[in-house]
Amino acid sequence: QENKGPQLNGYIQTRFSSNLNTTSEFMVRRAKLWLKGDVPRLDFISYKLQVVYRSFKDQNFTFQDALADIHLKENGLFRLGRFVPDFMMQRMQPDYRIPVLERATVINALNMNPKYGARMIGLEYLYSHPGQPWHASIGLFNGNTDKPAHNNNSLLVTSQLNRKFSFADKSDLTLGGSVAYRNITQMSLPTIYAAGSLISGDDFRWGTEALLHSGHFHLQAEYIQALLNSEKADGYYLLGWYDFNSHYQLTAFTDKYTDLNPATANHSWYGLGFNYLMTEKTKLMADFRCSDLDQNPVYSANIQLQIFFR
Amino acid sequence: QENKGPQLNGYIQTRFSSNLNTTSEFMVRRAKLWLKGDVPRLDFISYKLQVVYRSFKDQNFTFQDALADIHLKENGLFRLGRFVPDFMMQRMQPDYRIPVLERATVINALNMNPKYGARMIGLEYLYSHPGQPWHASIGLFNGNTDKPAHNNNSLLVTSQLNRKFSFADKSDLTLGGSVAYRNITQMSLPTIYAAGSLISGDDFRWGTEALLHSGHFHLQAEYIQALLNSEKADGYYLLGWYDFNSHYQLTAFTDKYTDLNPATANHSWYGLGFNYLMTEKTKLMADFRCSDLDQNPVYSANIQLQIFFR
Amino acid sequence: QENKGPQLNGYIQTRFSSNLNTTSEFMVRRAKLWLKGDVPRLDFISYKLQVVYRSFKDQNFTFQDALADIHLKENGLFRLGRFVPDFMMQRMQPDYRIPVLERATVINALNMNPKYGARMIGLEYLYSHPGQPWHASIGLFNGNTDKPAHNNNSLLVTSQLNRKFSFADKSDLTLGGSVAYRNITQMSLPTIYAAGSLISGDDFRWGTEALLHSGHFHLQAEYIQALLNSEKADGYYLLGWYDFNSHYQLTAFTDKYTDLNPATANHSWYGLGFNYLMTEKTKLMADFRCSDLDQNPVYSANIQLQIFFR
Repeated sequence: QENKGPQLNGYIQTRFSSNLNTTSEFMVRRAKLWLKGDVPRLDFISYKLQVVYRSFKDQNFTFQDALADIHLKENGLFRLGRFVPDFMMQRMQPDYRIPVLERATVINALNMNPKYGARMIGLEYLYSHPGQPWHASIGLFNGNTDKPAHNNNSLLVTSQLNRKFSFADKSDLTLGGSVAYRNITQMSLPTIYAAGSLISGDDFRWGTEALLHSGHFHLQAEYIQALLNSEKADGYYLLGWYDFNSHYQLTAFTDKYTDLNPATANHSWYGLGFNYLMTEKTKLMADFRCSDLDQNPVYSANIQLQIFFR
Repeated sequence: QENKGPQLNGYIQTRFSSNLNTTSEFMVRRAKLWLKGDVPRLDFISYKLQVVYRSFKDQNFTFQDALADIHLKENGLFRLGRFVPDFMMQRMQPDYRIPVLERATVINALNMNPKYGARMIGLEYLYSHPGQPWHASIGLFNGNTDKPAHNNNSLLVTSQLNRKFSFADKSDLTLGGSVAYRNITQMSLPTIYAAGSLISGDDFRWGTEALLHSGHFHLQAEYIQALLNSEKADGYYLLGWYDFNSHYQLTAFTDKYTDLNPATANHSWYGLGFNYLMTEKTKLMADFRCSDLDQNPVYSANIQLQIFFR
Repeated sequence: QENKGPQLNGYIQTRFSSNLNTTSEFMVRRAKLWLKGDVPRLDFISYKLQVVYRSFKDQNFTFQDALADIHLKENGLFRLGRFVPDFMMQRMQPDYRIPVLERATVINALNMNPKYGARMIGLEYLYSHPGQPWHASIGLFNGNTDKPAHNNNSLLVTSQLNRKFSFADKSDLTLGGSVAYRNITQMSLPTIYAAGSLISGDDFRWGTEALLHSGHFHLQAEYIQALLNSEKADGYYLLGWYDFNSHYQLTAFTDKYTDLNPATANHSWYGLGFNYLMTEKTKLMADFRCSDLDQNPVYSANIQLQIFFR
C-alpha cells in the first residue's frame, strides 16, 4: 500500500468587526495553508509544515509549524520540530474547530510564546488515542523566545494530563490539567508585564480544565495561573454551547484575565454567539461581546466566514 | 461528479531591461503562485490564494489574494476577501495575458492601492458571463490603505459597467467605464502627490474604456481621472496590436499620466513591441519605449520571457 | 505521453547543537519546499521554484530559486532566472545529499553571494550528462549583490570544468576547477572583509577540486582563492567518508579559511561524524568539531535529523 504523499490543506477566515461606535474593520483574520504527509518508505513518520497570513501582520505569510511525528503504534508518538507545546486545553483545539471566533483572553495571554502564535522549538512525547480515555504528554522546548535560535540554558518543560469519563447516557466528561516551567533571564513577557519590562527568575504555570458533552449541550472551562517569582497572573473562561442540529449552534461565554501590567484594566468579558455550519468546517459565525458595563462599557460585534478547503 | 480540489498554478517572468546608456538590469519581474479550487461539499463556492515574488521587493514572497467567490449560477457572483477591486479595464486584465510588458503608467498610478499591488479587503458583486454582452460590478472595500486592518470609516465604493457590441463581420467593440469614491483622512497617496504628503477629503475617480477586436487588429484605450477635493490627476493610454498568426504579435502604444507632484515631469511615452507566443501563455516579449525626445530623451529597451505552468 | 505537472518536494533539518560548555541550541536548520515540473506543451523547458525557512532568519519563508531550464537534448541546457552559479564543487552538491551537517567554511564564505544563500540572477549554459565524463558550464550574472535588481555594469562571469576518470576496479576520480570574475564598485563583502567595509575593483576567484570514490571509501577536497585587487583570501577542506553499508557512514574532515578581516582568528577545524541513513535521504547525522586546541579550544557537537518527503 502507498504511503501518503504531500497533501495541501487550508482555510480562510474573513471577518467584519465593529465596536458599535467609532471603528469598524474588515479583515482576513487568517489564511492558513499546510502541507502534510508521510515520509517516503518510513510511513511511521509523518510531517506537517504550516504558514499563515493575517491582515494585521504586514502582507507576508508567516511560518508557523515544521514538525515530524514518529508514531509508536499503540504507544503514542514523539513530535519534534517547531509547534505548539501541549499546554492548556483550548490552546490545543484548532482555531477552525472551536465554536467561538477567538480563544479566551487568558489562553492567548498565558501560552508560552504569544509573540509567535505559541509556537516553540522542541521535542514532545504525546499519548493520545481515539477510544482511549487518557491523554498525556511531556515536552522539552527552547524556553528563550526572545532569541528563538539560542538557548541560554532556558529549558522549558511542559506536561498535560486528562481523562475522559463516559457515562451510560452517551454523555462524557473530560477532566485534567497542565503544567509548564522554565527559568528565564532578562526576557520580555509583553502579555503579562508592561511593554519593555525584562523579567528574570522562575516562570511556573499551571491550569485545570473540564469539558462536558451531554446530548445537544456542551460546556468547557479552564482556570490558568502563571507564577513569576512571587507574582501571580491568572484567568479563566467558561464556554457553553447548544447544537440545535448539525447546522445551527448557540454559544454563551465569559472570560476574565488579570495580568501584572498596571496600565491594563482586566475587566470580565461576556458574550453570546450564533454559528451556521454550512459543512462541518465551512461556517458563518457571529458574536457579540461586552465588558465593564457599569463604568465604561465596551462592545464588540463580529461576523466571520470560514471557508475550509480539504 | 467531483468538485475541484486545491490546484496549484503559477508563472515566472524573467526580464532584461536597459536604458541604452548607463544602466541595465536583469531581474525576476514576477514569480506568481496561486492555489484555487472549490470548497468541499459546497461547489458553488470557489476560492483563490495567491503569492508573488519580485526581485525589487526584498527576497520574500508577498501575499496578494485571498478570496472566495459565491456563484449565483446565471446571476453572477459575490466575491469577498482580499483582491483587486473591479476598476479600470486594463487593471482587471491579468498581467500574464496583456500583450505588453507593463500596464500603462496611469493604470499603475491611479488604482486604489498602488502600495499593495491594487489589492484591497472587501466585498464585491460581479455580473460577468461569457456570451453575455453586459459586465457590471459594485464593490465595498476598506478604503484606508495606510492601516489595512483598521477602517476609520473610510469606505470605498467601486463600480464598473461595460457592454460588448458584436458585429456581423465577427468584429466586436466593448465600451464602458468605472467609478470609485472614498472619503480619506490623513492618507498618503504617493503615486499622485509628493512623497510624505498626507491628504484628507474626497477621493473620486472615474474612467472610460474601449476595446476593439477586428480580425487580426486590436485596439484598446482608456482615460482615467482622479479628483481629489478640487485637484485633478489624469491620464490615458492607447494600445494597438496586430496578430500575424497565433505565434507572432506586433504592438504599438502611447501613454501619458499627469500627477499632482511638482517634482515629476509627466512626459508622454511612445513604444513598439514584438511578441513570440510559444504557447498561449508561455511567451517571449520585447519592447522599446521612449519619452521626451525633444528636450531630454529617455529610452527603455526590454526583453521578457514568461513561463507559465498550468 | 503526459509532461510533468507541478510537483511539490521538500525536507526538514532539525538540529541540536552544543559547544559543550555554556550554550546549546535546538533549531529548525532548514525547512525547504520546492515546486518543479515541465512547462505545458513545451516539455523541453522545466522550471523550479524554491523557498526556505530557517530558525535564525526571523520566522518567514525566504525565496531562493526561480529558474527555468531549456534542455538541448544531448547538448546540455540553458538555465535562466535566480539560482546558484556553477562555481565550487561542494557548493553545487545539495545540502541534503552531502555526508556532513554543514559545507566547509571556505565554501560558505567565498561563494559569490553569501548574503542570499549564494543565489544570483542570470543565465548559464550547463553541459552535464550522466554517463558522460565531462562537466562544463559558463554563466553570466548580475554581480552587484547589494542591490539585486540593479546592475551598475557589474557583470559576473563564472565557469566550471571537471572530468571523471573511471578505473577498471569500478573506482573513479573527478578532477577539475572553477573560476569567477567581476569588477565591483563600493560593494560590501562581509564574509571576506570587516563588516562595513566597501570594496571596489577586481574580484577574481578560482578553485580546484577532486573527488575520489573507491569501494566503500570516498575522499573530496577543494582549494579556493579570492583575489581582491592585490589582496588574497583563501581556504581548503578535506573530507573523507566510509560506508559500512547502505545505512551507516563514518566521516572525518578538516577545513581552514583565511579571510581579510583582522578581527577573525582563522583557525583550522577538525571533525568526526557518524550518519545513520534510514532511507537514502532521510537520515540522522551527528558530528563533533574542534578548533584551536593549543590556545583557546572551541568545541561543537551537533545532532541533526533530516526528513525528506518526495
